[in-house]
Amino acid sequence: MAGSIRMKLELRRVVQGRSRLGVLKGFGRTGQHSLEVPGCLLYTRFGTVPHLTQDTLHTLSNLPSVTQVTLSNIAEHQEVLEEFKDGFRKFAGLHDTVLYCSLHDPAAACPTGYTTNQTVSVWGSGGRIELTVAKFMALQKAVQPDWYQSMADGETWQNNTSRKRVRKSVDRTLAHLDECLLVHQKSQELEGVEVFGVVEGGDILEERLRSARETAKRPVAGFCLDGLQTGAMDQTLRTQLITALTKELPEDKPRLLQGVGRPDEVLACVEAGVDLFESFFPFQVTERGCALFFSFDISPDPERAVLELDKQRDTAGATQQNGGLNLDQTQMTSFEINLKDKRYQDDFRPLVDGCGCYCCKNHQRAYLHHLLMTNELLAGVLLMIHNTAHYHGFFSALRDALATDKLDLLKRRVLGERGGQTERKD
Amino acid sequence: MAGSIRMKLELRRVVQGRSRLGVLKGFGRTGQHSLEVPGCLLYTRFGTVPHLTQDTLHTLSNLPSVTQVTLSNIAEHQEVLEEFKDGFRKFAGLHDTVLYCSLHDPAAACPTGYTTNQTVSVWGSGGRIELTVAKFMALQKAVQPDWYQSMADGETWQNNTSRKRVRKSVDRTLAHLDECLLVHQKSQELEGVEVFGVVEGGDILEERLRSARETAKRPVAGFCLDGLQTGAMDQTLRTQLITALTKELPEDKPRLLQGVGRPDEVLACVEAGVDLFESFFPFQVTERGCALFFSFDISPDPERAVLELDKQRDTAGATQQNGGLNLDQTQMTSFEINLKDKRYQDDFRPLVDGCGCYCCKNHQRAYLHHLLMTNELLAGVLLMIHNTAHYHGFFSALRDALATDKLDLLKRRVLGERGGQTERKD
Repeated sequence: MAGSIRMKLELRRVVQGRSRLGVLKGFGRTGQHSLEVPGCLLYTRFGTVPHLTQDTLHTLSNLPSVTQVTLSNIAEHQEVLEEFKDGFRKFAGLHDTVLYCSLHDPAAACPTGYTTNQTVSVWGSGGRIELTVAKFMALQKAVQPDWYQSMADGETWQNNTSRKRVRKSVDRTLAHLDECLLVHQKSQELEGVEVFGVVEGGDILEERLRSARETAKRPVAGFCLDGLQTGAMDQTLRTQLITALTKELPEDKPRLLQGVGRPDEVLACVEAGVDLFESFFPFQVTERGCALFFSFDISPDPERAVLELDKQRDTAGATQQNGGLNLDQTQMTSFEINLKDKRYQDDFRPLVDGCGCYCCKNHQRAYLHHLLMTNELLAGVLLMIHNTAHYHGFFSALRDALATDKLDLLKRRVLGERGGQTERKD
Repeated sequence: MAGSIRMKLELRRVVQGRSRLGVLKGFGRTGQHSLEVPGCLLYTRFGTVPHLTQDTLHTLSNLPSVTQVTLSNIAEHQEVLEEFKDGFRKFAGLHDTVLYCSLHDPAAACPTGYTTNQTVSVWGSGGRIELTVAKFMALQKAVQPDWYQSMADGETWQNNTSRKRVRKSVDRTLAHLDECLLVHQKSQELEGVEVFGVVEGGDILEERLRSARETAKRPVAGFCLDGLQTGAMDQTLRTQLITALTKELPEDKPRLLQGVGRPDEVLACVEAGVDLFESFFPFQVTERGCALFFSFDISPDPERAVLELDKQRDTAGATQQNGGLNLDQTQMTSFEINLKDKRYQDDFRPLVDGCGCYCCKNHQRAYLHHLLMTNELLAGVLLMIHNTAHYHGFFSALRDALATDKLDLLKRRVLGERGGQTERKD
């Protein structure tokens, strides 16, 4: 019988009352895996980091030990997985990684209006698939993750969602969780697998608190914070909600925030008490032909501490959108440079000076620019290598900053010395 | 002053009077590179093998030592290359490879009707670029290849090209060659760089012979055979023309056939006296979501000699087109399997049993099928790895077969034991 929780978050420090530094332990089939927090899960689509083979991927350092797959990618392949029998990890040729299965793909739009009392819908390449708890749990048995998100009704992030609808979403999500746990605990196949409960509640503080409190009463290994994603609300409100709701959650269980990936938002959410993120942001940056370009160097040497002086930096075209709403996640942010810009056609420098990734060690901006302009397939591969390396390097620096009391310095670096304004001079 | 020819083809065997086995030597900036023939050049677009980083590429064995780039990809970047100064090899982050520069991309359609007495046109991502000999040679100086194809008028492969037009093409191509050589020999930058003359003549034997004879009189290092590509004529006529025209060419200079890549056609052309091919075929196979799947095993062990018995093989949808014309190179051939086919959705075998490539060692057909059906970006990467490995393995087997008198056995394997018919039972 499944159900006993082995996953445990060991906190090493809590900075300024809320930012948590620690290690998540005791999960995976063997119980031997660990993951440092604040950290993120490895974003994949159908088990693959877009553009990259596992060989290429593993040339990068700081990679998370947990791979995220989503039911929206997998649900339509249920029959094949059931026939295959050995689970998605083996099906996808993944080896020594922990598998976390979420409901929706954070980098894909999910049409709304299809949730019912008994079902939620996911959207795969073949269209909508309606999931009951029975089907959801059958999928988990076929996927055989180490850890999964419980079924949830998350359709409360649109503007003008009524209080009644938000309350219904919290109620349904708790009911789904209870049903999932019932099936889970009776299922031998799910022995040793961890369940995360989902905290809903839209932008209504009272419902957020109720959702957190009620979810925390259930035997879950951790919490997914849903409906707070980029585009759903501004960071001030997000910070308020997270700060309040995490007070209702036990200290020794991890909090995974869904749908937030921008570096400035990550920093603010860590300060509000979030432990884990999804790493879809580097993929979005890659898809728009951009390269991550922001400093997270908190080394004491002032010469190394400043990323190259780049007067060409094109913040003009970027939207940092602090304090504003932006539903369109395809828009460029101020943490990246747009390699399609003509200014890079004769820029013979690497993407980021001193970056140790394969792309920066071997290629120049001008070459990337020309690959993008001629639609060469390698452009995405090279950008994805750099963006993945840069993003996970940022998380590594974030943990270092928490360990060495340098979070403020890191924030100044990342936000360009001005704390969240659009124009930066670094 | 440039112009002395160092490249030399050392023949080890000539089988049945025409099939040549040997080593091309003495080329590259240092003169130290060599290339086994029959062989092929590494197909790239803008210096990259589509989908693959150099790190991934170099996990494959049997790779050619010569990388092909084409002016149609490069011409629009002339200014940047001239500003960069260090040549295309360094611009593209290529290292220890010989660079061969051809005029057109063999895997891309080239609109016709734009050739004049003084110019030919290439088509890049930004549209048509008209090249005079002066511009063509300025580009060579910017690209700094080790070896390039002379400018040529190749618009004679369409149906109903008149004898007069064919004659004009031969005349123009010889005039372009003389002009190119004149600039070449005066140019210090092109010291040590080899020029290949282009043999034209459409489907008119007399013009083919004249073009070959006249080109052979010039100080060229080897010959490009143009206007004989797949789709331009059937293999019987192609064989006749190549067999005849190569008699006019010196034995110790290599013959590069442009635009032919299908394994059955490669075999027939090697038997007609061709030494070198362009390796665009695996890329075309990848782009249509297919995997190369044909046997070239000529080992004496009969158990190993037969590729897995694959009753699912989908020759039904394939067009072998021996003896027929097929201008549409996007159509599947009988040397591949279509991974998008539903039959592979629960096929848990590797693409090709016993294949040592990264894709076959790590993934199954079912996974590839699902990557393709969900448009995952990794699908192209994995297929390109396999197809590149399989194709260059075929060329390696071809050289072994010539060395050990097993060409007939290899032909039976490749053509599926029936020598060129559409249906095969293996």
